Amino acid sequence: MEKNQKKFAEQIQPLRDEIDRIDSDILSLLARRQEQVKKVVALKKTCDVPVFHPAREEDLISRLRTRAEEKKLDPDVIEDLFRVILRHSRVNQASDMRGKGIRPNARVLVIGGAGQMGAMFAALFEKSGYQVRILTESDWENAPGLCADVDLVLVSVPIEKTGAVVEKISPHLPETALLADLTSVKKEPIAAMCRCHKGPVLGIHPLFGPTTTSLDKQIIVVTPGRDPAASHWLVEQLGLWGAVLVQSTPQEHDEIMEIVQALRHFATFCFGRFLYERRVQIQRTLEFSSPIYRLELGMVGRLFAQDAGLYAQIIFATKERRQLLKQFITSLNQHLDMLETNDTQAFIHHFHDIAQWFGPFSDQALRESTFLIERLIERF
Amino acid sequence: MEKNQKKFAEQIQPLRDEIDRIDSDILSLLARRQEQVKKVVALKKTCDVPVFHPAREEDLISRLRTRAEEKKLDPDVIEDLFRVILRHSRVNQASDMRGKGIRPNARVLVIGGAGQMGAMFAALFEKSGYQVRILTESDWENAPGLCADVDLVLVSVPIEKTGAVVEKISPHLPETALLADLTSVKKEPIAAMCRCHKGPVLGIHPLFGPTTTSLDKQIIVVTPGRDPAASHWLVEQLGLWGAVLVQSTPQEHDEIMEIVQALRHFATFCFGRFLYERRVQIQRTLEFSSPIYRLELGMVGRLFAQDAGLYAQIIFATKERRQLLKQFITSLNQHLDMLETNDTQAFIHHFHDIAQWFGPFSDQALRESTFLIERLIERF
Repeated sequence: MEKNQKKFAEQIQPLRDEIDRIDSDILSLLARRQEQVKKVVALKKTCDVPVFHPAREEDLISRLRTRAEEKKLDPDVIEDLFRVILRHSRVNQASDMRGKGIRPNARVLVIGGAGQMGAMFAALFEKSGYQVRILTESDWENAPGLCADVDLVLVSVPIEKTGAVVEKISPHLPETALLADLTSVKKEPIAAMCRCHKGPVLGIHPLFGPTTTSLDKQIIVVTPGRDPAASHWLVEQLGLWGAVLVQSTPQEHDEIMEIVQALRHFATFCFGRFLYERRVQIQRTLEFSSPIYRLELGMVGRLFAQDAGLYAQIIFATKERRQLLKQFITSLNQHLDMLETNDTQAFIHHFHDIAQWFGPFSDQALRESTFLIERLIERF
Repeated sequence: MEKNQKKFAEQIQPLRDEIDRIDSDILSLLARRQEQVKKVVALKKTCDVPVFHPAREEDLISRLRTRAEEKKLDPDVIEDLFRVILRHSRVNQASDMRGKGIRPNARVLVIGGAGQMGAMFAALFEKSGYQVRILTESDWENAPGLCADVDLVLVSVPIEKTGAVVEKISPHLPETALLADLTSVKKEPIAAMCRCHKGPVLGIHPLFGPTTTSLDKQIIVVTPGRDPAASHWLVEQLGLWGAVLVQSTPQEHDEIMEIVQALRHFATFCFGRFLYERRVQIQRTLEFSSPIYRLELGMVGRLFAQDAGLYAQIIFATKERRQLLKQFITSLNQHLDMLETNDTQAFIHHFHDIAQWFGPFSDQALRESTFLIERLIERF
């Protein structure tokens, strides 16, 4: 064994040195690639061409996969690697390009611009050459002046204040001004805006939290209020900042958000509360767990690292939401019998019904989450 | 604009050609790297040196980060890339190395070796040079012959059959044989094995499903039964196959699994059932959703792509589990009041208590899941 160790130590070094040299060459090539991409961005800027080119990306990936096979490399690994490289290069390109404004010099008033979401949008408008004004609770006396010649008013205040703020600001607005809000419910705010303001109205719901650093591929729902033609430029601007836009009606938006936000966060809250009530040894359970449990528990832990007030707003926003959550609890209560009588057959029966209803989504979910679990194993 | 387009088309091509050349060179280097790694594996095999060398990996990563900074590359991106490369190379090395058996030619009997988990372990033992025998329900008459000179009996049958199978097989076993099971509960099976068999006993619980393709970094819990020294070789063998081993008592194991498996899967089942009861438009909700919702809904969908019977077993395994799940439902019912009276203050109050109890885990969870969300955005 000792002889083996010595032989190993002697022979491994030149191999490791060669691997280090190869890695260093890879880094040099990545640096050169970065230089070329910068030139492409500069050219796109001069020629006014959009940044992201999905077809070119997919084409590149499929050619790289073919070449990888020729070189006896695993095409999946190569695809993984180049997705990382391309995404990074896209984010860089985007942040360079997104200075561009659709209506530079237009006057934008952000109400609640001191909050996190308001501040984020104020900064985006500013960077794109708009004239940005901020109105906070403490300077309402300046409202008439700030509103006089304004082109866009963006309301970014807590849900429960949106109605009152809209009522208060509307009398000061020119009829041509576009009135828009960022609230996470849409039916009532849109109705309030249409009632109080005679000009164009648009509802905007950005589906991301304040931890987001770029709009790249982030989803924003837009719901029409009045005069869609007059708000088209704003929708286009959001797209240019990299957001993916989803069109909906206020009604549909609110119904879907009951599930996507209220139900989901409430279920997570309940799970966290039960762990707390039982004083479960979180860290020890993690030692015992598959990556998927780590991921699921992470979803619970993640909630409680965020703002309680924000989640209270989301969960309790409307009467319909609270009704839905009560129905959720009622639904759980029906399982008590099954547990009491140890009725696994009932469980299997329900399971199959649900599985059939989920349909192909289940398999897709299994594939996607398995991919993520592999990333998680790789990283942690 | 048209002039711009023409100028762009002319000038972009050479830049894109150069990027393609760089990508091709990167592939060539990766292929050369793969060749070197193969040589390292061959050397390790000859010299009997373990495959995975965590210190060398971390050392490599930190040197690459430094060099990346020198070359004005983002060190996080470079770390991401090389984690993918290293993991891939580790899996390759491992699959080459794991032919090695700690006790080659030892006789292993897998009871239930036709099931997925049994078949997986049978294949691993086979590949490592063990003499593997399979016993299924249909050939119990061969049990005496198969057991005569056996070194290890591995019971891999459904939970509810484990007790009976242990009772049935034990009289045929030589006293020196190691008796082990793969059941996902441990208290009762270990007790049954110790009662029926006079020789060494070990409990094994592999914390991964049948979709797993390699033991690399997968967690396996081992719980002592009798004569740990006599089962040491088996624990070592599991480690050599790449598994991460966690030691526990049968009692602690079962308590933790109540949470990690029963509670978690039951909560997921309840969520899926409610979506089904309301016939929620899954696909449309996905269009409206942040990547994190996609991930959470994926966790639900994933469950229903799997085997109903397996989850019934896990959820209903013991009386203690069913008791815990009833308490979970009771815990949810206490929230009805808060919803009824729209008491956001109560919600915020509970939220803070729970957040404080979760402590640093929450921030860690936020960091980890944000990392995964970025991967998800990148990929889908």
